[in-house]
Order: sequence, then structure tokens, then C-alpha cells
Amino acid sequence: MHNIKHIQELVNSELNSINFNGEPKQLYAPIAYTLAQGGKRIRPVLCLMAAQLFGKDITTVLYPALGLEIFHNFTLLHDDIMDNAQVRRNKPTVHEKWNANAAILSGDAMMIKAHQFICRCDEKKLPQAIALFNSVALGVCEGQQYDMEFETRSDVSVDEYLEMIRLKTALLLAGSLKLGAILANAPHQDAELIYQFGINIGMAFQLQDDYLDSFGNQQTFGKKIGGDIIANKKTFLLLTALRKAENQEKSNLNKWVTVKHFDCEQKITAVKKIYQKLSVDTESKIKMQAYYDTAISCLTKVDGQQVVKNELMDYASQLMQRIK
Amino acid sequence: MHNIKHIQELVNSELNSINFNGEPKQLYAPIAYTLAQGGKRIRPVLCLMAAQLFGKDITTVLYPALGLEIFHNFTLLHDDIMDNAQVRRNKPTVHEKWNANAAILSGDAMMIKAHQFICRCDEKKLPQAIALFNSVALGVCEGQQYDMEFETRSDVSVDEYLEMIRLKTALLLAGSLKLGAILANAPHQDAELIYQFGINIGMAFQLQDDYLDSFGNQQTFGKKIGGDIIANKKTFLLLTALRKAENQEKSNLNKWVTVKHFDCEQKITAVKKIYQKLSVDTESKIKMQAYYDTAISCLTKVDGQQVVKNELMDYASQLMQRIK
Repeated sequence: MHNIKHIQELVNSELNSINFNGEPKQLYAPIAYTLAQGGKRIRPVLCLMAAQLFGKDITTVLYPALGLEIFHNFTLLHDDIMDNAQVRRNKPTVHEKWNANAAILSGDAMMIKAHQFICRCDEKKLPQAIALFNSVALGVCEGQQYDMEFETRSDVSVDEYLEMIRLKTALLLAGSLKLGAILANAPHQDAELIYQFGINIGMAFQLQDDYLDSFGNQQTFGKKIGGDIIANKKTFLLLTALRKAENQEKSNLNKWVTVKHFDCEQKITAVKKIYQKLSVDTESKIKMQAYYDTAISCLTKVDGQQVVKNELMDYASQLMQRIK
Repeated sequence: MHNIKHIQELVNSELNSINFNGEPKQLYAPIAYTLAQGGKRIRPVLCLMAAQLFGKDITTVLYPALGLEIFHNFTLLHDDIMDNAQVRRNKPTVHEKWNANAAILSGDAMMIKAHQFICRCDEKKLPQAIALFNSVALGVCEGQQYDMEFETRSDVSVDEYLEMIRLKTALLLAGSLKLGAILANAPHQDAELIYQFGINIGMAFQLQDDYLDSFGNQQTFGKKIGGDIIANKKTFLLLTALRKAENQEKSNLNKWVTVKHFDCEQKITAVKKIYQKLSVDTESKIKMQAYYDTAISCLTKVDGQQVVKNELMDYASQLMQRIK
């Protein structure tokens, strides 16, 4: 874990050393504000670890790694407008602190900034790096679109949900790893394996997040438990429950999903009970574990530095440790 | 003009042959809708003419040229949300036809699409092409930010206005020309001259647009005359008038700028009269001509194919012909 912590600190100190402010202030201040909120910097850390895995000095690929973090924060900024979110990381969101127009335009500028950072790499690697980045970025937009559409659709399947989280969450994690591999000149096959490790870890990670939203521990989860249940968010849990429920459970679940006025705690308790009765909590854990195992199996096959591979395994398990 | 028309048709037929639709439909349909609205395709035409000027077969650089048109239309799409515009090219804007969230996200996807098209160029040219594009794109965002800020500021200077239109309008025209030059392997000095031609033509073009908004002919201008005057838009005309006005004119102009309830025709007639009395209409034409002359002088110095140079001059004059 020492190396991971070191990489994380390197990412943060590099990000902090860059002055994102500029003229016009209103355009650049939201970018600096967003990037100063911290976070785990998972994407650049994964990118740098992948580069290290294939023997690259990570200080030579810091900028593209930071580009991933800037892009990720751009998506949060625009998503927050679309979701009308008031708070992010205990601070007002950009469209709350400034306004929606400022958030749209600063987001646009932030995406261009992300491109500029991604491009600060070895010229020989640029075509591959930029093609990967553009295709991942477009996929993330597709994922966000599906996520928004699911809110008003009543026929979402579990497979559609899994495809949505693959695009919205897993793709950028996988792309971050693959970018590191590309910049480190890894063989095509290894770049593909590390990408698949990322996709599967991303799927496991998102399924875990959904699981914890209902079954997590208030203290360690960080957010209020039950938010997804209250909002009828179409997660793996709800979609699987809707598919499995019959008779009594079916009408009971439908009642809770459609009722307009309810006591929050009562709804959370009741829906969790249905989930448990239908074993969708267990099913979710099994699914999670399957993705996790596939991820580890992909990583095992990678022909890279063993010590870094072990650290990547540790990092993956650290990201998952809250329920494992 | 035959060649220009041919290039314009090539751009349109190529754009029409590309299927911008895809899944999810809601994400891609607004992109296809926006690009199907037509327009003069000035940016790709300039890019291709610049490539031709330096001896490049334009069919080999079509995709980067289209990337410029896609980017331009992305800026219109997001600007329309920020300006709350209902109509663009006689059709409902994207956020009107769909909704604001769809317009934000489709715009994001469109910007990424623009990057993908720009990148479809000779790998050796990619670093320069993408660096130019990113820097131009960021500048356009800065221009839009200044434009929005000017609406609520009362101390905007003429120089600030000129810098705003340089960023918002001239930069992308100049960047389009320079991209064509870069892709055609033009010497650095010629790429710089063609860029300066673009900046100056862009300035002249925008000043003309502002002039015509007040003094144009309803039939040939296409939009309703006087919109800027009604909205107190801080154009070269108004800012110069505010700077030059004294005594009677000053109080008269201030009255029209601050009055809340007024007859539109009466305000337009009165403000135009003040402009004429202060000779800001003439001053605007002189400024326009100065930019135009500088543009032509830059173009004259370019060491490129004379026949294409002549066509670029014709094209520039065609864009300006409405008042020249």
C-alpha cells in the first residue's frame, strides 16, 4: 500500500501545483474549485500503476494521468447539472455556487483541458492515446444518457442496467489502466488484459456501491443509507427483485415502488426485507464476486512486474473491502 | 467561385453521408438534427481552401475539416441553452425540441465527436493539429464567457469587445485556415499568415454582422433589424456611441438604454439617429475596412497557389459583400 499512497500523493501534489485559474475568472474558477475538492483520484492512480506495471517511470506520464482526473471531474460537473444535485463532497455543486450557464461552459472548458493534458505524452503514443480517450469519453456520455433514460422507463432489464454501469463507470477505469499500459509500451495483449481487469473491477465496484446504498453501514458508507430505495433507483437489486418477485411479494414491491406518500424508514425497511426474502442481496454479492474474480484472473495473466501486480490486487481489494 | 461551390458541396455531401445516429438515440439524434440544419459550412470550406492553397489534395483532409464544423455546431448547441434561444435556422433549438439535459449531454458527445474527426489526419500532423484545435476550442469558450459577462457589466470597453469577438468568432475561422495549412505541410510562416488572414477577416465579419443588425436591409440580412438595439447588446456601435456621446446625446442615449417600457420601432429609430449623429456607423465601417485590408495584406504575402489565393480573396469579399 505504500507505493499506492505515494502515487496518490504525487497526483495530488501535481494537481495542486497547477494553476487552473485564469481569465476570464468565471470560466476557470469553477474548474479550480472542482479539482480542489479532492477525492480518491482512482483514475490517475490506476493509470500510473498500469504504467509502472509495464516498467515505465511514472513521472513521465503524469500529465495524461491527470487528464483522466480532469475528465472525470468534468463528467461530475455536468452530471450534477442534469441530476440537479445540490451538494458534491460536502460542498455546493458548481451550478449551485455559480449558476447553470457557468457550469455548462466551465464543464466544456474542463473537457478541453482534459484533452490538453491527455495530449502531453510521447508523440509516438499520441494517436493511440487520443483514440482510446475519445472512445472512452463518448462511452461515458452514452452511459449517462442511459442512466437518465432509465429514470422514466419501466421496462429496464438487468442486462441493460449492467451495460449502463459498464459505460458510465467501468469504461473510464478500464480506459485509465489501458492508457497507462499504452504509454508504457505494453504489448497489445497485456493492454487488453489490464483493460478487462478494469472493466470487471468497475462492474464489481458499482454493484458494491448499489449494494451498500441499501445494506451498508451508515458510518462507513458515508452517505445516508436507503437513498436508492427511496428514489426507486433502478439498480441491480431493484431490477432483480422486480424480475423475481411473484404473488404477494410482487404486489408488495409494486406498492412500495408506486406509493407517493410514505414514511422513509418504513419504505427502506420493507423493501430491504423483500430483497432479502428474494435473496437479491445474496445474488448481488455473487454477481459482484464473479466480476471481482474475473478481474483478478485477467490481472494474473498480465505479463508485468509482479510487485506492481500485487499492489494492483491490493488496491482492487481495498476498493472492495467495505463488504468483502 | 466555382471551386468554392464545389468544396461546399463536397463538405455537405460528406456530412450527409455520415450516419450520426446511434444508440442511445436520445444522445445521437440531436447531433444528427443539428448537423442537418445546413449553414454555409464556412469553417470546413476555409480549412480545405487553405489545404488546397498549399497544394494538398483536399479529399485527404476532409475529416479534420468536418471536425471543425461539428465543433462549431456544438458551440451553437450549448450557446443556445445559455442564451435561452428558441429558434436556430428556422427550427427549434435542441433544448426546445428535446430538453436542456439532452442538449447538455448531446453537446458533450458532439464535442468528443469533433475531436474524433480532427484526429483522422496524418499521424505526423496529429500533435500540431490537436494542439491547435484544443487551444482554439478553449479560446472560443473564453469568448462565450466574456460575451455572457458583458450582458450584466456596465463598464465594457471597445477593446474588451474586440477581444471578445476575436475569441468567440475570429479564432475558429483563423484556426480552420491554419489547420488546413498544417495538414498541407505549409511552412510555419505561411501558416501564421493565413491564421492572421482568418483573425482579421473574422473581426471584419463580426463587425459587419453587428453593423447590419442596426443598419442592414431587412430582406438581405435575414434577421429582424434592430435586435441588438432593443436588447442593448454591447456591440462596437453601442460601446463607441457611449464613449463618444456628450451632453444632450449622452443623456438621450442613456435614456434609451435604461428605459424599461418603450415602442421598439421608436427606440430603433432614435438610437440609429444617435449613432449617425456621432458617426459611429462610419467609424464601424472604417474599422471593418481596416481589418479587411489587413486580412487581404496577410493573404497577399502567403506563398501559395495564386489561383486559390484569388479564390480565398473572392470568398472573403463574398462574405463581406452585403455592405461593401
